[in-house]
Amino acid sequence: MSLADAFHGRNVLVTGGLGFLGSNLAIKLVRYGANVTLLDSLIPQFGGSFFNISPIRNQVVVNISDMRDANSLDILVQGKDYIFNLAGQVSHGDSMRDPQLDLAVNCVSTMNLVEACRKHNVGVRMLYTSTRQVYGWPQKLPVTEDHPTVPIDVNGINKLAAEYYHLLYDGTYGIRSTVLRLTNTFGPRQRIRGNRQGFATIFLRLALRGETVSLFGGGGQIRDFNYVDDVVTAMLLGITNDGCMGKLFNLGSLRAYSLIQFVDVLKKFCAFKVESVPFPEDKKIIDIGDYYGDFSKFHGVTGWNPAVDLEEGLEKTVAFYRENKEVYWQ
Amino acid sequence: MSLADAFHGRNVLVTGGLGFLGSNLAIKLVRYGANVTLLDSLIPQFGGSFFNISPIRNQVVVNISDMRDANSLDILVQGKDYIFNLAGQVSHGDSMRDPQLDLAVNCVSTMNLVEACRKHNVGVRMLYTSTRQVYGWPQKLPVTEDHPTVPIDVNGINKLAAEYYHLLYDGTYGIRSTVLRLTNTFGPRQRIRGNRQGFATIFLRLALRGETVSLFGGGGQIRDFNYVDDVVTAMLLGITNDGCMGKLFNLGSLRAYSLIQFVDVLKKFCAFKVESVPFPEDKKIIDIGDYYGDFSKFHGVTGWNPAVDLEEGLEKTVAFYRENKEVYWQ
Repeated sequence: MSLADAFHGRNVLVTGGLGFLGSNLAIKLVRYGANVTLLDSLIPQFGGSFFNISPIRNQVVVNISDMRDANSLDILVQGKDYIFNLAGQVSHGDSMRDPQLDLAVNCVSTMNLVEACRKHNVGVRMLYTSTRQVYGWPQKLPVTEDHPTVPIDVNGINKLAAEYYHLLYDGTYGIRSTVLRLTNTFGPRQRIRGNRQGFATIFLRLALRGETVSLFGGGGQIRDFNYVDDVVTAMLLGITNDGCMGKLFNLGSLRAYSLIQFVDVLKKFCAFKVESVPFPEDKKIIDIGDYYGDFSKFHGVTGWNPAVDLEEGLEKTVAFYRENKEVYWQ
Repeated sequence: MSLADAFHGRNVLVTGGLGFLGSNLAIKLVRYGANVTLLDSLIPQFGGSFFNISPIRNQVVVNISDMRDANSLDILVQGKDYIFNLAGQVSHGDSMRDPQLDLAVNCVSTMNLVEACRKHNVGVRMLYTSTRQVYGWPQKLPVTEDHPTVPIDVNGINKLAAEYYHLLYDGTYGIRSTVLRLTNTFGPRQRIRGNRQGFATIFLRLALRGETVSLFGGGGQIRDFNYVDDVVTAMLLGITNDGCMGKLFNLGSLRAYSLIQFVDVLKKFCAFKVESVPFPEDKKIIDIGDYYGDFSKFHGVTGWNPAVDLEEGLEKTVAFYRENKEVYWQ
């Protein structure tokens, strides 16, 4: 069965539905003919916006509420075939500055969601988007799923706990869940204002503005990157494939890049300057060094491979933000 | 320096201070001449009581407040040399019935505590009592600290997150913390009413009452046991030994027992009947099979060994509860 067939006419809830991942996913789900409900708290600075869903605004149901409110979830999970749990606080730095908020938004909210499903919809299938940050400093590269989890920031701890909730409810109550550990995802509809959504968004904004990109400590750090369309495909495969249920998987890219190399690719599409600066102390304590993930486990089960490489992805991304300058980065 | 010297005149905060571990620890700390503040929320059924500290009632400061209240912690951590973080929800079954409460009491509270220390007392030393439950089903025995953590109940997940908070704040901000993963601890001042504090407390209550102890599935399950005085000693060593800081350690006993063997030892001190019954479904899903831990890592750093074996411990325990029948189990 094709993905389009799998979702046609099905009832889908997307938490964080107005955010970067959620809106791109929603656009694809609408194209597949799904009945889509987007849940979002629209907490300022988290990245959600109505503009993100402007292509599908009249084809989805939008429900503004906060997942810390368990009662609204008790209603919203009912009758859903699929729930993509994408909502959350993603900034590593913010998680250190306001750890209680990170805990509430990542742990309490996810607990409320799985509990709502236990009470009202045990037959649902869920997918949770976690993060490579749960591994902390890589002890070997590429990082596989059995790598020890030693998070070095509050966000990594809380995302790990949320993974465990999903997998526990899968194992205990049969509420099927797949966990994807995302790496750096980039593309249209990401919040690129401010410094909360990772270095790629900061570099992109500076590059678009023709300003100076600062590479910390020389920029030799290695990272892997997924274009958002590939992540959307991974999510659709992950939630429909029986072999993914109750398991966690890395995403990742076919090759890794140093930050210098990333900037060099970006220079093909934008004119900007680059400088090297010492590593700021508050950034250093939550930096994980070099990272790239092994996604062969997920590939083995679903056949997924990233289809868009960094160059093609950045070209599309830059074009999108140039077209929507006043919304995202002016 | 002896433990008595290490604590003499020092300011010590014990969270969960009116509970089983907290009260036994407090009695020892008072004997050592420490200035002891006991923080407890006295949430019903959690095990805290003023009776537990009756031998030292006038020699300690008792502060009734809930650690979910961050503001009171901001005050209480100030000026303390040592903080033993023992408060928490410990019932595996309750954590499945009310996971949100377990999350609040174990994660939110611990986050509030380490944040209070970050703001007001970075020089403090802390010790956190975690649980063997973070390992889930043992993949090999005895279980060492590098065993994968795959909790099979909400309590195990939340205690694991709380461990991570302590260790993260140790590594990031230098707020020294030791984590002890406790196994079955028994002894005086434990709540043995109700079924929340583990099978040993249930067996003990039934034995004292001369009622029938039910062994699930034959009672062949293997467990290890620590008498509470040995755990108190381990906590005192763990918080004072420089080699323990930023690390986590198992406790454990010199030998393990099947539940049948446990019951046989208990029979030396109480007259009661035993029956074998099928494993109840709700218990089975959170049962971890056989477990006994390897405590050689902690022994290697601190020299700690359990001094009281199961027989001696149960004899003392039975004597205590016989003497305090009306308080604990009538």
